[in-house]
Amino acid sequence: MVNRKAWELGSSRSVIRELFAYGQQQRQALGDDAVCDFSLGNPATPPPKGVLEALTRLTQSEDPTALHGYTAAEGAAATREAVARSLNARFSAGVTRGDVFMTAGAAPALTAVFAALTVSPDTEFLALAPYFPEYAVFTGIKGARMRVVPSAADFSLDPAALDACLTPAVQAVILKSPNNPSGMVYTEENLRQVAEVLTRRSREWGHPIYIVCDEPYRELVYDGKAVPYVPGIYPNTVVCYSYSKCLSLPGDRIGYVLVPPTCEEHGDLLAAVAGAARAIGHVCAPATYQVLVRECADEAPDLAFYDENRRLLYGALSEMGYELVYLAGAFYLLCRAPEGDGDAFSARAREQNLLVVSGAGFGAPAYVRIAYCVSRETVLRSLPIFRRLMEEER
Amino acid sequence: MVNRKAWELGSSRSVIRELFAYGQQQRQALGDDAVCDFSLGNPATPPPKGVLEALTRLTQSEDPTALHGYTAAEGAAATREAVARSLNARFSAGVTRGDVFMTAGAAPALTAVFAALTVSPDTEFLALAPYFPEYAVFTGIKGARMRVVPSAADFSLDPAALDACLTPAVQAVILKSPNNPSGMVYTEENLRQVAEVLTRRSREWGHPIYIVCDEPYRELVYDGKAVPYVPGIYPNTVVCYSYSKCLSLPGDRIGYVLVPPTCEEHGDLLAAVAGAARAIGHVCAPATYQVLVRECADEAPDLAFYDENRRLLYGALSEMGYELVYLAGAFYLLCRAPEGDGDAFSARAREQNLLVVSGAGFGAPAYVRIAYCVSRETVLRSLPIFRRLMEEER
Repeated sequence: MVNRKAWELGSSRSVIRELFAYGQQQRQALGDDAVCDFSLGNPATPPPKGVLEALTRLTQSEDPTALHGYTAAEGAAATREAVARSLNARFSAGVTRGDVFMTAGAAPALTAVFAALTVSPDTEFLALAPYFPEYAVFTGIKGARMRVVPSAADFSLDPAALDACLTPAVQAVILKSPNNPSGMVYTEENLRQVAEVLTRRSREWGHPIYIVCDEPYRELVYDGKAVPYVPGIYPNTVVCYSYSKCLSLPGDRIGYVLVPPTCEEHGDLLAAVAGAARAIGHVCAPATYQVLVRECADEAPDLAFYDENRRLLYGALSEMGYELVYLAGAFYLLCRAPEGDGDAFSARAREQNLLVVSGAGFGAPAYVRIAYCVSRETVLRSLPIFRRLMEEER
Repeated sequence: MVNRKAWELGSSRSVIRELFAYGQQQRQALGDDAVCDFSLGNPATPPPKGVLEALTRLTQSEDPTALHGYTAAEGAAATREAVARSLNARFSAGVTRGDVFMTAGAAPALTAVFAALTVSPDTEFLALAPYFPEYAVFTGIKGARMRVVPSAADFSLDPAALDACLTPAVQAVILKSPNNPSGMVYTEENLRQVAEVLTRRSREWGHPIYIVCDEPYRELVYDGKAVPYVPGIYPNTVVCYSYSKCLSLPGDRIGYVLVPPTCEEHGDLLAAVAGAARAIGHVCAPATYQVLVRECADEAPDLAFYDENRRLLYGALSEMGYELVYLAGAFYLLCRAPEGDGDAFSARAREQNLLVVSGAGFGAPAYVRIAYCVSRETVLRSLPIFRRLMEEER
């Protein structure tokens, strides 16, 4: 007598979490050096020095009842103010603290937004491929359906494919920028093409079709590129952000929902996000980390660390004959499986304790995803195994 | 085009949160000393010294990628081990770490359990009055209905009233022990009476009726009393625990679900809780605070601080003519409104910046709840106002 869907979701972990758990098991059994774990986006580089110093300072000198006490459900005013100020300085965003709702990372931000936008059993969300597999779980929170929009061959957004997938039941399109797992940083021009399609269809159907922009990788971009601020291109954009990746705090669960004032249903949408969060047991985002964000909203990640891993892997694997999607963002490389089957390659690699996630769950079944947010030593240790896996296939 | 129910939940805060927000506003406008805020269970006493020291030690010497990294969804093994060890030492609970699922406090623990136990649109949960008002929100996560079982006149559990409310659609009974808002610590005998009713009806209807025991106040008990361990009395008990109150860490969101091995559907229920948590965007409980629990699972709150407030308020208010429910647990006093109407008294008090929550939302409409987890100075400052409010009514 338990909920069947919940039981199924709990009995089968996400593919990524499954592989991560396997890696932890193997490490415990065989030692840390026996496993090359590229499964999870769990930064191997510590939080920036400024973040660690701020945390030490706060635990030593902030009034403990203030540091550890409840905040309002939407978050502490000073934290939301710091977030708004940072966005305004970087993107001329024109937002205020009233537009920011602090959450325990991006995952509950997304579920709250999907719940807020589910208006009937027919509601649909479109995920722009390749996409983060858990969207299929999060969008179903109130019984809505998720469908997948294929990308162009080069992993950019395909406006015509999007248009073909749109129906009046679509409430939002889910955009991951920079993309997980491709690393794609969508260009402003590509985003404008998508915005044009959504604007036209919103007008035709008489209701806004939102972009839900999932942005935990916004600060992780290389080659001197910049990530366009999506609400500046398409007004009906809701942003779900997390400090997990950029500040190397993935376990501490801190992020936000931004509903910019450009959203047509701004007030109603903010209220619905707050209500949806309340219904899933959100009381407030972790308080200590709210105070940390107040202090560290502009801290930047160690890009050089990731970029060196990226270059090293790309160079070495290309040289071995692998075909890689080498793009400028996040900390993932998509690698075409030599046998053309991500599931098969992931299984073969796992036998040698090299953990890479199949692209199948991301809508890229010919690929595996290599999360290069690992130690340099892991990268170096993996190379002979990658070579062996390529030779096996030949 | 936003979800109507979410919008409603977000547009009307909980009565407690509404009053708390009003208090913050008034404090900002008029100064801290202008407001006596007894609205929220937000401890005014800092975390125990051992907790603060552990936090400082961890931020300084624990490997930061381990301290801030993802854990498995169910929590870090060492943390769950520490929780199980503590329960076994105190209650001979006979649990293992496999029975413990770490959550971001009690609220998401409860929503995950209610979602896991909702099996059809007819599913019902019974709240034993007086009860925490947000249960009405949390139980509705998958569309189930909550009904209220009245208490006996002395606020103890009424087994006959419970029996009269039970139907085959009831999946669980929600028990808050010690009780919020009455402070009642249910006796073992009273709990056995309830267990007897539930055992009989479970057998009759061929499925377990669970007790969901919401226990954030378990360590807060005075007069040398002890809080019975409910799974030891009724095997089909699921515990939702939070460190918010006992360790004065309410904003940091750390707690757990315990599904003891005595539960009939132990494995299925654990899987369903994990799946329900996944569906609401739970990734892991805040990692730093998981490590803290590993270190501090046996730290105790400053009971003397609360007990002195309790005695002071009870003595002074009784002397003024107030009728109080003076019980041994939590940090709440129920006070009968002189006019017999909690809403009216709460409104009158609010005009004088004395914030006490009406009992109406708790199923105790003739009362107000006084959260005495405030500074001594606030208690002393409140006394002349309480006196004035009593005199006004005469």
